[in-house]
Amino acid sequence: MSFSVTVRDHLMIAHSLKGEVFGPAQNLHGATFVVDATFRASDLNADGIVVDIGRATAELREIVAAYSYRNLDEDPDLLGVNTTTERLCQVIGDRLASRARDGALGSARLSGIVVTLHESHVAWASYEVAL
Amino acid sequence: MSFSVTVRDHLMIAHSLKGEVFGPAQNLHGATFVVDATFRASDLNADGIVVDIGRATAELREIVAAYSYRNLDEDPDLLGVNTTTERLCQVIGDRLASRARDGALGSARLSGIVVTLHESHVAWASYEVAL
Amino acid sequence: MSFSVTVRDHLMIAHSLKGEVFGPAQNLHGATFVVDATFRASDLNADGIVVDIGRATAELREIVAAYSYRNLDEDPDLLGVNTTTERLCQVIGDRLASRARDGALGSARLSGIVVTLHESHVAWASYEVAL
Amino acid sequence: MSFSVTVRDHLMIAHSLKGEVFGPAQNLHGATFVVDATFRASDLNADGIVVDIGRATAELREIVAAYSYRNLDEDPDLLGVNTTTERLCQVIGDRLASRARDGALGSARLSGIVVTLHESHVAWASYEVAL
Amino acid sequence: MSFSVTVRDHLMIAHSLKGEVFGPAQNLHGATFVVDATFRASDLNADGIVVDIGRATAELREIVAAYSYRNLDEDPDLLGVNTTTERLCQVIGDRLASRARDGALGSARLSGIVVTLHESHVAWASYEVAL
Amino acid sequence: MSFSVTVRDHLMIAHSLKGEVFGPAQNLHGATFVVDATFRASDLNADGIVVDIGRATAELREIVAAYSYRNLDEDPDLLGVNTTTERLCQVIGDRLASRARDGALGSARLSGIVVTLHESHVAWASYEVAL
Repeated sequence: MSFSVTVRDHLMIAHSLKGEVFGPAQNLHGATFVVDATFRASDLNADGIVVDIGRATAELREIVAAYSYRNLDEDPDLLGVNTTTERLCQVIGDRLASRARDGALGSARLSGIVVTLHESHVAWASYEVAL
Repeated sequence: MSFSVTVRDHLMIAHSLKGEVFGPAQNLHGATFVVDATFRASDLNADGIVVDIGRATAELREIVAAYSYRNLDEDPDLLGVNTTTERLCQVIGDRLASRARDGALGSARLSGIVVTLHESHVAWASYEVAL
Repeated sequence: MSFSVTVRDHLMIAHSLKGEVFGPAQNLHGATFVVDATFRASDLNADGIVVDIGRATAELREIVAAYSYRNLDEDPDLLGVNTTTERLCQVIGDRLASRARDGALGSARLSGIVVTLHESHVAWASYEVAL
Repeated sequence: MSFSVTVRDHLMIAHSLKGEVFGPAQNLHGATFVVDATFRASDLNADGIVVDIGRATAELREIVAAYSYRNLDEDPDLLGVNTTTERLCQVIGDRLASRARDGALGSARLSGIVVTLHESHVAWASYEVAL
Repeated sequence: MSFSVTVRDHLMIAHSLKGEVFGPAQNLHGATFVVDATFRASDLNADGIVVDIGRATAELREIVAAYSYRNLDEDPDLLGVNTTTERLCQVIGDRLASRARDGALGSARLSGIVVTLHESHVAWASYEVAL
Repeated sequence: MSFSVTVRDHLMIAHSLKGEVFGPAQNLHGATFVVDATFRASDLNADGIVVDIGRATAELREIVAAYSYRNLDEDPDLLGVNTTTERLCQVIGDRLASRARDGALGSARLSGIVVTLHESHVAWASYEVAL
């Protein structure tokens, strides 16, 4: 038996990717990432929830806002990071996981977090981390 | 190796949630829940399916119809239940699981059921149960 | 030649509908309405936009928030109103139109507003008003 | 009586917007635009179509590819253009209209073209031009 | 001022298209068409609706069911019809219009009907007819 | 910790299903299948990716194209196969897995592949295979 709750937000960024495999995406370009953050738990808390949707939305909003409307190539936090869709899933997922461990998401006993970034209607990536 | 089949339906209900964490959702309000019921199996049956989509749809329809166009706060089956999205996933999932165990879904050897309720375009919850 | 911009939000309400045509929806039940507000103009303003998406989103949010997490049957503003999806489109659309006429949406010369409410994945309604 | 056909593609670009109204979007950032191109006609041609979907898709692809994976702030074609979502709809729509007038879309007698760019799951813009 | 209501259903058919423009679609193949039927009216009726969603859904269902799970190349009603997505929109739209004129959709004073068939996530067609 | 990347394509086919359980789908009919191919890995490669999205898209395209615009009942590769949605997920998934094992998807150390076929807006199936 397991439960999950997912909330959705988005961010719009510029970046370039390093490596021949990326072809034209080595140019400075950009993306809208629609972000889904999933919180997993093996049971519900006393309120009957995995996590407060309002609080989860607010935490995700705060993390996403820090990158929004920026050029990730010049972000000091991402120096040396190839900001692929997969890696950005991890960056956001690890930040959410850190906040969950610090208790920012309330009393829920979370077992894991999944972050999915949709880069278009035909491609998306996910990262899952255990808590 | 594993397979799954998912069918979608929806229900429209009124309810209120108990607990300060729910803020304004403590008021009597309502929701459309778009319901996805996923049936898992480790292999296909002789017909090459996990479950008959028509039968799965009919079973889900019958379960969902019992709650549709109602005020869940006054439903005798849900007395004392905080009808969060997560808990409603469980209610519907456990009913589907019960029918699956009773053979209502045919010959498929199901290994699990997942029920996802979408409460809006930006939030949804899931419940998974093994069979 | 014409342009439009659309922003999306949602509200969750309880209500009942009056009239035999509504069958079980005469019971107190509820809905999530995903709301799309479209702003039309025959040309763009000096900034190259129909309307500031941030401002349009904020105006829609404020109108939608006034009805969110409530039982519309008890809303003094809606006394005697059969709160069908179509009628709620009109209520929201007329409020947006009023704000647009008062200049709340900035310098854009809007020619019309359309409001669409999605009540499920299989049904939605729209209202269009000229400005 | 009227008909239309719509095809979908997408592009990923970097850009910045000029004007205080854009707030943080004045920074260099980026977007994925999911592009819908709609072709309108008052009747079908001898093949029973508005336009060959394959050809429409190919024309849209070629136009979209010219901007894909680029920084629009440095595009010589867009010098002095504030590349808002609305304006990019117009740029793409006018290019499609020009090709339609040149006969690139075949024998269909088109009456108009609509281009919609979705910048996220909660905001999109459209441009319509008569032919 | 105008209103509309849309309901969604789907059908799954085999067919082939006649004409070189269709390339490989000249082979016998098939499609799922997700069908949206929109009913337009300049005002709401005494119940506050354009059309009863239940009745509209039932009428659409009946029309769609007549073509479902069939090979349209062998349908006597479609002899000599090139069953393109556009033409199928018209076939379904004209049948709905006929029923609307016969009063099957109730007391609503409808001004028009639009039928949209989605043939994939990247292509769809529409037909609009006045009433 | 795990990652995945998903790419989307579609195919349009005719077929019939063998077995009473399929009811009217025993007739020759057809479907559009929107195909999602998910590639899983426990870590990212040196480029920071699970798999090159362009290459994954091209491999999926090639596999899907081999079945597109055809009558699967007459496909020599599928003789004796009941081409249910589940089974087609497996056919496509096993071909992708074979290519992955042959190195066609590059240096990524993939742990599994999931293929999902959406047969309509209300039904889909998936197949998962370990690598």
